[in-house]
Amino acid sequence: MRNAEATRERILEAALAEFSAHGIAGARVDRIAQAAGCNKNLIYIYFEDKETLFTTVLMKHLMRVHEEQPFTPDDLPGYAGKLFDWAIANPDLMRLLAWCALEQKPNGSAERTATIREKISKLAAAQHAGHVGRTFPADFLLTAIMSLGTAWSAASLFGPSLDPKFAQHPAKVRKSVIEATRLLANAGKQSRTTK
Amino acid sequence: MRNAEATRERILEAALAEFSAHGIAGARVDRIAQAAGCNKNLIYIYFEDKETLFTTVLMKHLMRVHEEQPFTPDDLPGYAGKLFDWAIANPDLMRLLAWCALEQKPNGSAERTATIREKISKLAAAQHAGHVGRTFPADFLLTAIMSLGTAWSAASLFGPSLDPKFAQHPAKVRKSVIEATRLLANAGKQSRTTK
Repeated sequence: MRNAEATRERILEAALAEFSAHGIAGARVDRIAQAAGCNKNLIYIYFEDKETLFTTVLMKHLMRVHEEQPFTPDDLPGYAGKLFDWAIANPDLMRLLAWCALEQKPNGSAERTATIREKISKLAAAQHAGHVGRTFPADFLLTAIMSLGTAWSAASLFGPSLDPKFAQHPAKVRKSVIEATRLLANAGKQSRTTK
Repeated sequence: MRNAEATRERILEAALAEFSAHGIAGARVDRIAQAAGCNKNLIYIYFEDKETLFTTVLMKHLMRVHEEQPFTPDDLPGYAGKLFDWAIANPDLMRLLAWCALEQKPNGSAERTATIREKISKLAAAQHAGHVGRTFPADFLLTAIMSLGTAWSAASLFGPSLDPKFAQHPAKVRKSVIEATRLLANAGKQSRTTK
């Protein structure tokens, strides 16, 4: 049984590399089997089909991120900085998300939708409590922060291609991402007054 | 000769649809030939290979956009609003850019790089002249505006999937994109003083 678990993990690891490189349509189950050192049929037994394997890999990693990096609506600049680090450190996962958007698969699952809804409602609550400004609607602010925070990742349409020397000064860009988030998050915030 | 030109245009049109749907690796030249109503060999005669055809389609449209929508560093919020409209109206082209980033092809050509450099230097000049704030470096500001302006397009990782009801209120999001750009562009701008 422990053996089966180890094989399953090896398949998921090989699948991450294969999907990241080739997308869903382009991925080959036999290449995944070869990289994982297992029989191709085993993959179908464990994961049903290629699409299910893709969703399993994507959700496994997204859920891990969600646990390791809790959303902090009261500190959006700090969250943006961590998101920036994460997007640079995990090009494979950023690419999975991009393939997902391009290949128009059900973009994540009910789990992913629930996670997003939760973030938006936490952000709206932080606005209501006066910790975050109210110039921008909560859903706009979340998309803006996610887009800015990941704009220099490997899967981005603009970041690395607009700025080929980015790798030489990531800390400078990170600082700007945090500062930009601070500006957006503070817009429309009541300045503190003594009661 | 006019006939040849018309065939060439039909091929480019069919190629846009095929590449947008399937990417570079996934595109099939025989499907493009069929959609364009021409012989497959003609495509190779006109465009050499599939990669060259892709680059030709991408650059044709990017150059058109570049001409139709001049970059206005002195009015970055206005530029962001137009970019937003363009990204929503041209999902096919946004998808080409995304495939480009994912399939790690030479991301556009020397022409595209030159266009980007030109924008960055115009933006830096606008900062120097005091029309744009100096909190953010010009290359950061350009990437931030491009990312925000296109974050609700069909190829985006976050926009439409974070906000499934987006199609019902694009004008509201557009207004926020413009306002967010104004904030970023004005950061660090000296307030006008009488001389």
